Amino acid sequence: MKGRHGGMTTERERVSSPPTISEVAAAAGVGRSTAARTLGGYGYVSPELRERVLAAAEQIGYRTNALARSMSTGVTHTLGVIVADIGNPFFAGVVRGISDTSRERGFDTIVLSTHEDLGEEIAAMNVLIDKRVDGVIVASAAVQRADVAHINAAIEHGIPVVLVDREVSHLDLDAVVIDNRAAAREAVDSLIQAGHTRIGFVWGPSTDTRPTTRRDLLDAAAKNLWTDGERLRGYLDALDDAGIRFDPELVMVGDKTESRAVDEVARMLALPDRPTAVFCSETDAMTGTLRAVRAAGLAYPADISLIGFDDSSWAAVMDPPLTMIEQPMHELGEQAAATLLTLVDGGSTPRSLHTLDTRLMERASVAPPSGDMPLS
Amino acid sequence: MKGRHGGMTTERERVSSPPTISEVAAAAGVGRSTAARTLGGYGYVSPELRERVLAAAEQIGYRTNALARSMSTGVTHTLGVIVADIGNPFFAGVVRGISDTSRERGFDTIVLSTHEDLGEEIAAMNVLIDKRVDGVIVASAAVQRADVAHINAAIEHGIPVVLVDREVSHLDLDAVVIDNRAAAREAVDSLIQAGHTRIGFVWGPSTDTRPTTRRDLLDAAAKNLWTDGERLRGYLDALDDAGIRFDPELVMVGDKTESRAVDEVARMLALPDRPTAVFCSETDAMTGTLRAVRAAGLAYPADISLIGFDDSSWAAVMDPPLTMIEQPMHELGEQAAATLLTLVDGGSTPRSLHTLDTRLMERASVAPPSGDMPLS
Repeated sequence: MKGRHGGMTTERERVSSPPTISEVAAAAGVGRSTAARTLGGYGYVSPELRERVLAAAEQIGYRTNALARSMSTGVTHTLGVIVADIGNPFFAGVVRGISDTSRERGFDTIVLSTHEDLGEEIAAMNVLIDKRVDGVIVASAAVQRADVAHINAAIEHGIPVVLVDREVSHLDLDAVVIDNRAAAREAVDSLIQAGHTRIGFVWGPSTDTRPTTRRDLLDAAAKNLWTDGERLRGYLDALDDAGIRFDPELVMVGDKTESRAVDEVARMLALPDRPTAVFCSETDAMTGTLRAVRAAGLAYPADISLIGFDDSSWAAVMDPPLTMIEQPMHELGEQAAATLLTLVDGGSTPRSLHTLDTRLMERASVAPPSGDMPLS
Repeated sequence: MKGRHGGMTTERERVSSPPTISEVAAAAGVGRSTAARTLGGYGYVSPELRERVLAAAEQIGYRTNALARSMSTGVTHTLGVIVADIGNPFFAGVVRGISDTSRERGFDTIVLSTHEDLGEEIAAMNVLIDKRVDGVIVASAAVQRADVAHINAAIEHGIPVVLVDREVSHLDLDAVVIDNRAAAREAVDSLIQAGHTRIGFVWGPSTDTRPTTRRDLLDAAAKNLWTDGERLRGYLDALDDAGIRFDPELVMVGDKTESRAVDEVARMLALPDRPTAVFCSETDAMTGTLRAVRAAGLAYPADISLIGFDDSSWAAVMDPPLTMIEQPMHELGEQAAATLLTLVDGGSTPRSLHTLDTRLMERASVAPPSGDMPLS
């Protein structure tokens, strides 16, 4: 066998060829798997063994891309995730999908929560730039063109960014989302198919004054999160399909809180021509609606039909169990992480929008409107 | 007015005295609040303005502790948080409390989730050490003495650590917890007061084989998380207080999952002397129990009484609403952050255990046992 310089292989030349993980393990006096985990930056290694492996690797000149980068920048393989609200089970599921996928690839995931506040989102992005993460996944609160400077700043620092859950106008980035508009349209259509024409929408735009025209409503929605606007459009689509006139009184306005939903649904239920069904676009919108329905002495689905967004184990154990739109939370996270890791690896795929399917989990909270209800 | 060196104040001397935030703002051509937010490391500042403020601060020699540290280490004010499961609303509430308190003090919070896996917890701690956070709050999965090396490693790196939710033996650290044992005892006692003597416990130790003696049960629980063991002890305390004999058949064993809870409660409900009440020590234990109760054709509270741990908006809108133990999630986070920030500031208070109160939210899922039940 020829050595690198054309002569016969000598012991010396074999030693001077790039050392292997097994050689690092032998030099450190640890098992090969411990050395592999340490040098790959994944899994369980005690601090003591980790130090021994790194010292041995340095001594015999072992290098991997990961280690080289770690040594030059002082960071390990890390992805940053910025979500609106870590306490929302939806985002928790997305984060779980991200961390499961990135962990398989030897990346750790650090998460920052912004409470849907753009200022906090900007601060969070600054932290991730300072901490030199290898890439960022963000469910952004940005809506206006002026809102995206922090995302561009990350990209200018060489940190690839993938959007999850929400598209952002003015940004040409990969995004992994669901088709919110189609999901809402399907749910509202199923209420219409059951015979409903007076259908409430909770929550709507967070304006103080109630938009009275369809145009005002859509303008108000455009100032809100992309997801909220899309769900409202899906509601209007379904009404249009069935030739049902939009009634501004049936759309909630104001703060997106459970207590505001209670008040707004109570208001709707007191209308002379009250809704016989309500579509809830968020989990807390549903719990607020349930409180208002119960406070009004009504029972679902006999007196009022209900469909919600974001399935949970609670929705299935309600009595009767609730019909809900299930989002593929874990898969959203997986795809966002896979897309980001391709970019981190230097892959330059064309920018794309990944749209995942939702599923309407039909249970027992929808029934035909009761006969004694005045229908329009 | 005298200048610093005893002579008359000159323009030059005023300039050479430590510059103020207002002077930085003027030099940068931004408002005082923008300069304050940038130099304090909190709130909304666009990357462009941030750069201008930092450049102006450097130019005129402005220094704060925060900025000095940021410039010497390359990091901003950041706390790291390691929790078992970011998808658990309990931990989401704790993290919210931590981030609210730390943000007020100009610290950002980064979160890592470990899925209750010690290997992931160790990897997470390594990330936080590498990222040079100023302090760490951890809800640790560590149980054995050999499990705590990564926590000691952080402290050896000069990073203070505060425990939250769980005490860890073999570690002399500040901890912020609830009194799990007292909370469980109070809940089970309220079932006993209602007349119950056959009371199931979900979930118990994650062993494959069912412990048949009280000693085996406590040994098994000691290998589990501290919180789980404490809640089981509280259950036994309440039985002891009332002179009720412990029945191993009424304690769930196995994986801590909703589906396992369904199977174990179904098993209990098929006993000749079935439980007339169940105490659920986690949210998913309750949803699993509800599924099993419904599958058995039983209704609560008429056929079986229920109390759960961790209140949520869903528990209150169940029909009937569920009696639950409410943990002060936000306050746990607040106190952990406040304690950690004292340590970060160099304060050396005596190590302490902060124990916060829980509240039994009595609703409508507890009733006397029905007369036709065979009671022991």
